[in-house]
Amino acid sequence: MKPQAAFDVNGVSIPEPSRKAMASARDRQSHLTKPPGSLGRLEDLAVRVAGIRDQAVPEPGGLKRVLLFAGDHGVTAEGVSAYPSAVTPMMVRNFLAGGAAINALAGAAGAEVRVVDVGVAADLSGLKGLVQAKVGPGTRNLRREPAMTEAECAQALEAGWNQALQAQRDGVRWIALGEMGIGNTTAAAALMASLLPCPAAQATGLGTGISPAVWRAKCAVIRGALKLHRLSPKRPLEALRKVGGFEIAALTGAILGAAARRIPVVVDGYIASAAYLAAFRFRPGVKAFCFFAHRSQERGHQVFFRKLGLEPILDLGLRLGEGTGAAMALPVLEAAVRAHSQMATFEGAAVPGKTKEAGKA
Amino acid sequence: MKPQAAFDVNGVSIPEPSRKAMASARDRQSHLTKPPGSLGRLEDLAVRVAGIRDQAVPEPGGLKRVLLFAGDHGVTAEGVSAYPSAVTPMMVRNFLAGGAAINALAGAAGAEVRVVDVGVAADLSGLKGLVQAKVGPGTRNLRREPAMTEAECAQALEAGWNQALQAQRDGVRWIALGEMGIGNTTAAAALMASLLPCPAAQATGLGTGISPAVWRAKCAVIRGALKLHRLSPKRPLEALRKVGGFEIAALTGAILGAAARRIPVVVDGYIASAAYLAAFRFRPGVKAFCFFAHRSQERGHQVFFRKLGLEPILDLGLRLGEGTGAAMALPVLEAAVRAHSQMATFEGAAVPGKTKEAGKA
Repeated sequence: MKPQAAFDVNGVSIPEPSRKAMASARDRQSHLTKPPGSLGRLEDLAVRVAGIRDQAVPEPGGLKRVLLFAGDHGVTAEGVSAYPSAVTPMMVRNFLAGGAAINALAGAAGAEVRVVDVGVAADLSGLKGLVQAKVGPGTRNLRREPAMTEAECAQALEAGWNQALQAQRDGVRWIALGEMGIGNTTAAAALMASLLPCPAAQATGLGTGISPAVWRAKCAVIRGALKLHRLSPKRPLEALRKVGGFEIAALTGAILGAAARRIPVVVDGYIASAAYLAAFRFRPGVKAFCFFAHRSQERGHQVFFRKLGLEPILDLGLRLGEGTGAAMALPVLEAAVRAHSQMATFEGAAVPGKTKEAGKA
Repeated sequence: MKPQAAFDVNGVSIPEPSRKAMASARDRQSHLTKPPGSLGRLEDLAVRVAGIRDQAVPEPGGLKRVLLFAGDHGVTAEGVSAYPSAVTPMMVRNFLAGGAAINALAGAAGAEVRVVDVGVAADLSGLKGLVQAKVGPGTRNLRREPAMTEAECAQALEAGWNQALQAQRDGVRWIALGEMGIGNTTAAAALMASLLPCPAAQATGLGTGISPAVWRAKCAVIRGALKLHRLSPKRPLEALRKVGGFEIAALTGAILGAAARRIPVVVDGYIASAAYLAAFRFRPGVKAFCFFAHRSQERGHQVFFRKLGLEPILDLGLRLGEGTGAAMALPVLEAAVRAHSQMATFEGAAVPGKTKEAGKA
């Protein structure tokens, strides 16, 4: 008997950002006390936030939340990672104790961190502060069989979706996405190769720091998986299920949920971008609600940005995940909103505008 | 009769960052709970701060101050700017009223803004909150004669130096540099062309937004000035005096003072970089104390970074000045210090390290 579905991903519909709010915001930018365009990308970021929130002058500040989904990967049996799977639960404990990079960087950005177990291969049921949403003790080995069953993938998507809805209920203004899962650059690379699409070698990077020999083996694993599953960009959720992971599907669900509820989402690095790609191929409308935090050192990330015509906010050589890049981008986004909302206009400050002759072409 | 000099720039000596603190910091980075190198540039930034402060684990937080020097430029008589000089005092009032971009962005970064009049061509003596250090009512026209006399340039350098020393007395942990002065991209371009050196056209950009015709005229003005003054990278303070500006010389003095007192300095955009270049050609040791905030849209900034082998932290298409880019970079630097100081070590968190086999080449 099929359990009753509380959440049907096929029923998800994504709103459009408000064109009216964006037009008002763009007009306001042209009256602020600065040469037109001189705040560069900050101006576009502020205009996009106006559209997402349907407010010409979005309020700065407010609650920021990093959603950090953790899960394990059966594909680690193929020897694709520099670290053992045991690191996943250890790092979950580290997140909860406040000792990981994401704790320091989220703290610097004034964001809280919410850690969600969607599939760690260890019993973490008693851990204080951990959100319990485990779908299973790690995925199956995507090189040999689908990583998830249909029910499992739906459950992982729902876990992410629910976190977005909870964030809305809690009044969260910004969602930043992070993940932890030894083996997940392999799953992300397989998903990217399937859905961009691109050759396995282009999508495959050095993960947490593997040797050239392990990199070649990782490419072969991904090529084998692609051959086995015969995926297509036209069937994004099938690809997500067969070569993704619990935490990746949860991220996809969180992106769909945040966009559905008009909450701006900061997408972290390569893994979160793979989850975004599945969401985008499924519902292209999510694009308007997402900001890309940084260019990861993971080589497939460049291919992702180039193929989708996107430009990340930061380029700091990060390759850690956990949401660290997203946390670093939050202050940039906050600054864009503050400049937009707090600056005086030329009229208000009685500052003369541009000399007509000098500006003429 | 020569007035008694309180400050002799030729007596300035710059310390070295602590190699011992940097080595300890680098070692600590390798023990933090993350794959080695995975925080990218944040790791190097933290190690540099350790060296500057001579602390293996520098404390996060602390007072951050934007030093915003304002001055006017006689070269505006040549029609090189898109805005009239009257904008300089108007914007000074705007800074003091909190309505400018730097107020919003410094606020977002938790930094205070200190506005110093070193040469605005208007009487601002009664303005509350303005630091009074005026050398003169704008520089002379650098296309026709030296922008400053020797005494004026020394006084402007001293004004900046004094602000750095005041910052030290106030316990400021980070100095960010900004400026305001209609016409100062022309002075900065002339200084860059002289001290990098490079052709005038490579150093000259669109400033606050001039037309192609005005750009060509601006290049001709700079070429004329270079021919008149016959400057050399070997005589940086002569170039600063003849084609710089009061606020540019004050920035140079502030860089020298901050480096002398081991305070890390965040250099803003093109104008602040020109001031840095004068300081660097005069005392190359300042390099270790400076962080380059962002890549300005001003074209000469690319030449500057390429020629000096530097890499800015951000690339957001800003071209505003005021210290806006420096304010945007402060949270990145703060995050680097926080990750370095607050993260757990593998030993402390009982997280297993890298699997030896997978990491081997």
